[in-house]
Amino acid sequence: MKLYTYYRSSAAYRVRIALNLKGIACEQVGVHLVKDGGQHRTEAYAAINPLRLVPSLEDGGRYMTQSLALLEYLEDTHPTPPLLPADAFGRARVRALCLSVACEIHPLNNLRALGYLTGTLGVDEDAKMAWYHHWIHEGFRAIETLLTADAGAGTFCHGDSPTLADCCLVPQVYNAHRFGVDIGAYPTIRRIEAACLALPAFDAARPENQPDAD
Amino acid sequence: MKLYTYYRSSAAYRVRIALNLKGIACEQVGVHLVKDGGQHRTEAYAAINPLRLVPSLEDGGRYMTQSLALLEYLEDTHPTPPLLPADAFGRARVRALCLSVACEIHPLNNLRALGYLTGTLGVDEDAKMAWYHHWIHEGFRAIETLLTADAGAGTFCHGDSPTLADCCLVPQVYNAHRFGVDIGAYPTIRRIEAACLALPAFDAARPENQPDAD
Repeated sequence: MKLYTYYRSSAAYRVRIALNLKGIACEQVGVHLVKDGGQHRTEAYAAINPLRLVPSLEDGGRYMTQSLALLEYLEDTHPTPPLLPADAFGRARVRALCLSVACEIHPLNNLRALGYLTGTLGVDEDAKMAWYHHWIHEGFRAIETLLTADAGAGTFCHGDSPTLADCCLVPQVYNAHRFGVDIGAYPTIRRIEAACLALPAFDAARPENQPDAD
Repeated sequence: MKLYTYYRSSAAYRVRIALNLKGIACEQVGVHLVKDGGQHRTEAYAAINPLRLVPSLEDGGRYMTQSLALLEYLEDTHPTPPLLPADAFGRARVRALCLSVACEIHPLNNLRALGYLTGTLGVDEDAKMAWYHHWIHEGFRAIETLLTADAGAGTFCHGDSPTLADCCLVPQVYNAHRFGVDIGAYPTIRRIEAACLALPAFDAARPENQPDAD
């Protein structure tokens, strides 16, 4: 397996965590999103991922895209240890948490959306950062609510072992820290982040620990 | 089962299609997103969905949220007819198509994002519609590319029977039509939309055919 990754991409970070938790050997290929005008924009990379997005996963000569689809693929092909619960309701709960990150926060705050705000709409730096913080708070309020609405959370987002929900949450909290978002109002998210980062699989997946970090 | 739905919500529309394709009997409860200042904003609805989002699904007295999690739940609990392929690579391909709608287009164009643009950022109607069209074109270019990059597509997004990818694509094309987006540049998307709408399961799920349509 090969993971086409960028150390700061939170979508790639999700997949790195899952690979580590499952102990899957996987070569990492760095695709720098800024250097050289964006290495993901090249024709060479389009042959790997026609959407020119990071991450991509190669397995057996076939290429796949979209981080949540990659997480499900790893779960499908390497079911041990499981990163989804055994019961259908639990799986729906974990997936709802993943999607609360992947649909409610990340698309609004990624480079493309921010670029449209400052480029096409002429939004200034302060208003851009207010937008960024707004969607993190909206999403984290929702996730904190989901995590505390029932007894599903344990040490981690769902029970006492990590799931795909933790793989999605931790990179989003990393982004919140990076952009100075105060997450004091989300004690459950903070507690789970600390529990995750204490595990070697999460620690090794951190952006600053990647071979392509600069 | 009960589906808490709004006829124009494209996320609810995805779930209605899947319910119909699987022939699952499900009571529909209308939650009007505009009337009464938004019926999803009430405390009564927060008890059903703490995120106050539509759709929600009730099954056996338990409530679930996030449309893609609901689609996977229906697949988990009612596997026949299958809406995901039998092979892991095919499942990754279908999920990547679903996520290209649910992560790359819909979050940027939903009511919340548009409300922030016009409210907080003071963007005018023309610039708002340009934003809306921009993200549909970005996403549809990606989806058209994914659909034609390999031999996976048949009559439908993946092979010759409908999958979750079609459940996500058709509501997004409906939104494109509703807001006057010219989709002439996406012949595969148009062909698949026509094939889907010819099926009773898709036709019955159309917004204008819902009991809560106004």
